[in-house]
Amino acid sequence: MHTTPSRRRIALAAAGLMLGLSISLPLSAQSFEAKDLVAAEALREAGLKSGLAYELVDSLVTEIGPRPAGSLNDQRAVDWAVAQLQRLGFANVRAEAVPLRAWKRGDAHAHVTAPFPQPLVMTALGNSVATPKEGIHAEIAYYADLDALKADASDRAHGRIVFIDQKTERTRDARGYGRAVAARIQAPLEAAKRGALAVAIRSIGTDRDRLAHTGATRYAEGVTRIPAVAVSVPDADLIARMTRYGQPIKMHLALQAEGGIAAVSHNVIAEIPGSERPEEIVMIGAHLDSWDLGPGALDDGAGVGIVTAAARLMLEAGLRPRRTVRVVLFANEENGFDGANAYAEKYKSQVHQFVGESDLGAGLVYRFQSRVRAEALPAIQRIAEALAPLGIAPGSNEATPGPDAALLMRRNAWPALELSQDGSDYFDWHHTPNDTLDKIDPAKLRQNVAAWAVMAWLAAQSPLAFGPMPAAAPAAGAARP
Amino acid sequence: MHTTPSRRRIALAAAGLMLGLSISLPLSAQSFEAKDLVAAEALREAGLKSGLAYELVDSLVTEIGPRPAGSLNDQRAVDWAVAQLQRLGFANVRAEAVPLRAWKRGDAHAHVTAPFPQPLVMTALGNSVATPKEGIHAEIAYYADLDALKADASDRAHGRIVFIDQKTERTRDARGYGRAVAARIQAPLEAAKRGALAVAIRSIGTDRDRLAHTGATRYAEGVTRIPAVAVSVPDADLIARMTRYGQPIKMHLALQAEGGIAAVSHNVIAEIPGSERPEEIVMIGAHLDSWDLGPGALDDGAGVGIVTAAARLMLEAGLRPRRTVRVVLFANEENGFDGANAYAEKYKSQVHQFVGESDLGAGLVYRFQSRVRAEALPAIQRIAEALAPLGIAPGSNEATPGPDAALLMRRNAWPALELSQDGSDYFDWHHTPNDTLDKIDPAKLRQNVAAWAVMAWLAAQSPLAFGPMPAAAPAAGAARP
Repeated sequence: MHTTPSRRRIALAAAGLMLGLSISLPLSAQSFEAKDLVAAEALREAGLKSGLAYELVDSLVTEIGPRPAGSLNDQRAVDWAVAQLQRLGFANVRAEAVPLRAWKRGDAHAHVTAPFPQPLVMTALGNSVATPKEGIHAEIAYYADLDALKADASDRAHGRIVFIDQKTERTRDARGYGRAVAARIQAPLEAAKRGALAVAIRSIGTDRDRLAHTGATRYAEGVTRIPAVAVSVPDADLIARMTRYGQPIKMHLALQAEGGIAAVSHNVIAEIPGSERPEEIVMIGAHLDSWDLGPGALDDGAGVGIVTAAARLMLEAGLRPRRTVRVVLFANEENGFDGANAYAEKYKSQVHQFVGESDLGAGLVYRFQSRVRAEALPAIQRIAEALAPLGIAPGSNEATPGPDAALLMRRNAWPALELSQDGSDYFDWHHTPNDTLDKIDPAKLRQNVAAWAVMAWLAAQSPLAFGPMPAAAPAAGAARP
Repeated sequence: MHTTPSRRRIALAAAGLMLGLSISLPLSAQSFEAKDLVAAEALREAGLKSGLAYELVDSLVTEIGPRPAGSLNDQRAVDWAVAQLQRLGFANVRAEAVPLRAWKRGDAHAHVTAPFPQPLVMTALGNSVATPKEGIHAEIAYYADLDALKADASDRAHGRIVFIDQKTERTRDARGYGRAVAARIQAPLEAAKRGALAVAIRSIGTDRDRLAHTGATRYAEGVTRIPAVAVSVPDADLIARMTRYGQPIKMHLALQAEGGIAAVSHNVIAEIPGSERPEEIVMIGAHLDSWDLGPGALDDGAGVGIVTAAARLMLEAGLRPRRTVRVVLFANEENGFDGANAYAEKYKSQVHQFVGESDLGAGLVYRFQSRVRAEALPAIQRIAEALAPLGIAPGSNEATPGPDAALLMRRNAWPALELSQDGSDYFDWHHTPNDTLDKIDPAKLRQNVAAWAVMAWLAAQSPLAFGPMPAAAPAAGAARP
């Protein structure tokens, strides 16, 4: 998952609004058919017994592993996904080309040279430019967080390596991450504006492991592109401790990287065609790419497994949805949202009953949220009731689905549904080599599958259309990948 | 800490024998003086308030960091220790030269090439020879554990890279580690005897982090020396999963390393001279060296801090012990016990009231054990009573102190005392880059300091001599570094 601060602010703003609204609406002609509700219960029970999601993640991380967008392994993952979706009996399985500019990591080394020589565990942030071959050797300008850097009108950063010691708070949702990640995204810009030679940040993560967290960063037109890295949390602690000695801290940083590489990836799509309104789409997504440092079991192998297994449950039960259920495995969520943008453009004229995405790992779903027109809220309430036995509570009508789906929602004004996962430990492993299969609890994955199956099925059967949405409020804004 | 299987077997054998024996002995003329018991209580309370141990570990890992024996950083650590011990007011502070043969890690890379190309997180085991420069590319011969390899009389390992998937069980004491570590120590020998080209083991560790655990391994005369590495636990899982596909698994392994480097390190020693029997030594130790992968906060920065702070409490209280209290910070515990052997030789004729060592991290002390002559058990019982308020229970009279002290105990038949630490999480971080300051809880460290101060003080004041020990039983055997 890649999250921008703007998305988080929206989620925060929505925290109060609950679903009680729907109670006052007439339900008679808008009710689900009884057989569809019975089928939802059967899907729920079948989901809790399904091992398919775990089998799919296992297969993906064992047979493919790391699959950064545009790499050979990314192409292997696309082939894998097409083969799996065909094997599982979906219709219209296809890989839709997504041109993109890839970024490739090279060797990277950093160490403190003064006052005490120490090696640093670090990694380049995604899109970072390289240092000169001999590296950069300069004094560190220490900032406790991004705000401290932004507030600095002095020339302290000039000619130095800026270090931002931004902490990431552990929260059940992604809020702690959302608050911290601006330091990763804006670091090179804010540091370069002040004349810094390079920027290093404390990893955006809640762990205390000697593994650095990568993730996309951004440059801006007209501002010098400086190298940007993250050091592991214990290494950030080390630098912070060295500041107590009151002596200049010097760092040597050398990294190689290559950006702007022309490449092609693919959105992989599979469907269960609708029986009555095949032109209306229930879109459940995940992203197929991962960062290069790890095999992406949680980010987003888990999501790939969950939404695929959820849709497969309908096929196994012999169910034919009224609307088309479409599984979309997006290309390059991590570093550019090229897949989401390509999908948004290609399918912009298609009615989407909702868009959703599973991309916060493999924790239990604890909340169900929507962003639909008010007239559809009775259907949302009925879906919430069907999810309740899974321990899932109703939330607001200000859902923010996974990042690709959020982009679609904003760009095309499509309705969205969200199954909020417990992400308490997700940011311990996110964007690090530690994102491995052992971090997934198969039982929790099954609960996710059950929830997605129930939600997708009932949305496909709903007597109420979830859209069109009223004219977008300015707060939702444009997608900011 | 470096532990050999033999040491663990002794601990296991001792599990039943408790201290009840002492109750039947006369206590009158053998009692501690009341003022000494009062002083022990004061030391205990002062220890629980002392921040010195944490300050020392902080200083060591911040200013020095990794300090493998014979390295420049090892020498810097020796200088650091001498300066600290002098600053703290100890007498007879000295660094005693310890010649040794150092081993130096070089670059290392490994990946699976078939059936699915995947990178592997791995590290060379200590003392490993290098591969040819172009590396070794061969099929893996998978063994579930060392016993499976030992039981294999076939030629399956011949011309292959042996992989040993030995699991490490989490236990409060080091027993789980003790049972698993033979796979690390004996792997290259057992694999080479069967014609293997190299050997890789699952890291001997209880974590699931993408960090490999190093540690010493051994070669034997007359058996080919083959390269030996450990892969991280998740990478071992990956290899195990690949075996399910029934296809040959191939690995490429390239590592550089250099052994047999002539070097000198030092045992660093400081004393509080005894007032009545200065020639009798209460020896509390730790080891100053660490592995190269991390700063050795737990292994054994914590021990260095604990025993130094414990002795310092006596100076701060103005106490003058009857026997000499000697702090010994050993050289090269990790890869050869050169410091312990040098100490054993140099001081073999000196009476040691006991030898002890803190080297299992920074967990709470939960047990106090002894290995003293039977006549001294009433004193041991009284020490146990003084430790009880710290939550420390009495154990057996078959103590196994830390590894350097255990070598001294066996080689010179010296009495020993042991403060058993809770090591439940120690092997999550042991011998990895993750052995950093954040893994230490300062409150737990203070409990350790209090316990060591009480134990060392009362042993120094004891009306009973703890030795000489009866003739060594064959089970204790010779030291096996």
